[in-house]
Amino acid sequence: MDSLNSSEPPVFADIKDAARQLSGWARRTPLLENTILNDELGFRLIVKPECLQRTGSFKFRGAFNKISRIPEDMRSKGVVAFSSGNHAQGVAAAATLMGMKSTIIMPKDAPRAKIENTKALGGDVVLFDRQTESREEIGERLQKEQGAILVKPYDEPLIIAGQGTIGLEISEQVGEIDAKPDAVIVPAGGGGLVSGTALAISETLACPVYSAEPDSFDDHKRSLEAGSRQPVPNGASSICDALLAPIPGELTFSLNSRLLTGGLSVSDDEALMAMKRAMLSLKIVVEPGGAVALAAALTQKIDLKGKTVVVVCSGGNADPEMLARALAM
Amino acid sequence: MDSLNSSEPPVFADIKDAARQLSGWARRTPLLENTILNDELGFRLIVKPECLQRTGSFKFRGAFNKISRIPEDMRSKGVVAFSSGNHAQGVAAAATLMGMKSTIIMPKDAPRAKIENTKALGGDVVLFDRQTESREEIGERLQKEQGAILVKPYDEPLIIAGQGTIGLEISEQVGEIDAKPDAVIVPAGGGGLVSGTALAISETLACPVYSAEPDSFDDHKRSLEAGSRQPVPNGASSICDALLAPIPGELTFSLNSRLLTGGLSVSDDEALMAMKRAMLSLKIVVEPGGAVALAAALTQKIDLKGKTVVVVCSGGNADPEMLARALAM
Repeated sequence: MDSLNSSEPPVFADIKDAARQLSGWARRTPLLENTILNDELGFRLIVKPECLQRTGSFKFRGAFNKISRIPEDMRSKGVVAFSSGNHAQGVAAAATLMGMKSTIIMPKDAPRAKIENTKALGGDVVLFDRQTESREEIGERLQKEQGAILVKPYDEPLIIAGQGTIGLEISEQVGEIDAKPDAVIVPAGGGGLVSGTALAISETLACPVYSAEPDSFDDHKRSLEAGSRQPVPNGASSICDALLAPIPGELTFSLNSRLLTGGLSVSDDEALMAMKRAMLSLKIVVEPGGAVALAAALTQKIDLKGKTVVVVCSGGNADPEMLARALAM
Repeated sequence: MDSLNSSEPPVFADIKDAARQLSGWARRTPLLENTILNDELGFRLIVKPECLQRTGSFKFRGAFNKISRIPEDMRSKGVVAFSSGNHAQGVAAAATLMGMKSTIIMPKDAPRAKIENTKALGGDVVLFDRQTESREEIGERLQKEQGAILVKPYDEPLIIAGQGTIGLEISEQVGEIDAKPDAVIVPAGGGGLVSGTALAISETLACPVYSAEPDSFDDHKRSLEAGSRQPVPNGASSICDALLAPIPGELTFSLNSRLLTGGLSVSDDEALMAMKRAMLSLKIVVEPGGAVALAAALTQKIDLKGKTVVVVCSGGNADPEMLARALAM
């Protein structure tokens, strides 16, 4: 990838390049498992806890991979991004580290903690109404007025390559714990995380990779089945605030349609149950959207008996009320 | 250390030896921090999350360091241990990995999850009444009847050396994140974890190390002040079930009296607040006893302004009710 603004899908070399770019900046999250849980489930469940990543989600990886490559003479213009909260925090943190201003357009109903943290990380937050305003229009206006550089949440090669470093790390780390994955399951909103991860896995472990979504936002699942991008029906809702993108990304779907074995989906209650499991058995805090791949594995949306599965828990930025709700399941 | 049953205090070489013994068996837990939290606190807070260790606490390290050295011809007799739950799980897991039977003597009022997990890890659990029975007597009887090898929870050189690998890892890992600790704070029950960690830190980072305890079980703090081992008063109680040892260990105190700068203590409410902070800001689940060092840092029992502190969060085996109680703080 030569350009900061390439619109070509990334290739494996871009992920290795992103890993070098992130080295010393992003955290290399560990792999976690619990032998008691494995015995109970009848398969080996390995978790990649990106809730432990800087800013509490995987989003820092892609954001930093993009923002840190902005040439010095362009940095004064700042960056702009729209996000329900995790991309927001990733962009704000990466921009602050690079000495850049960031403007983040967030929905009014995003979790309180995500809005507050984005501000605390140095972002200028602009709130909008999901029902009546277009975040894209607000974003374009800010780009024009300020000349700010747009950092898209998923449909951008450097972002996908940055998230793909998770797949690269998984492929290296499973060797350290003597595991040979039969499948990898990854949460999907716009599809950046799963496409980048699948790209890395296809060149390393070469095992099946599945997307995981809320039942009511199963656009990846249906798109993979249809062979073309299918939107989420109007009026859909889910507690998985990180996964509410309206349709798979163009660039991400061009990768996912080739690389994914299939799409899985779970109910909000299954996501809550997975959050509880994550707290009690793995000692990590995962937000609803971050828990859908774990939920898909725990409820065996695919047959996992006797197998080894790696699931990405993509974020942990939940309000205490949501954690309490999960614990009460 | 030549013998499996040495009663000499360990030296630094024993910790390096334990690190080799644990390699590939214990998890190398990461260091975590949150820049927003650091900004808010006015100092750099780095957490070593041993809740992410195998069996959910640091105890696996010491237990495995001891049990894996038992010669093959002695393994058929099995091991015996007494513990409120974390040592129990560490011993049961290590024994099972070595193909050995384990009998674990646990108080009836230990957290449900700890009892169940010890059984699930392969331990034969014998329950006793904290108020009316002596766990030492039960342990001695089992040793005599079965010839089982006693794995003490803290007052044993191989156990201390195993826990000390945490200090060794901290000293290596702070370099990776460009941190120079001014202080290290470590929870203390019998004192094995803090003495081993302090021994490693004294030979590497050479910064002050403090013990942290519940206010009502502040025997290390008082013993350090008095210069001799002081018991916990009768009738003391705390929600920190992992830290209810009645008096500092002999061997551990011989190290701690020389190596620790001082002892800190926190209230149960401060421990609960620290658990909440750990969940929301660090995305980890910490049990009450595991959170006392974090609590001591958050409430600045020593002046930390502008400094860098490393705290060990020593375990995460809490029941959901306790986590919900912390979240409601």
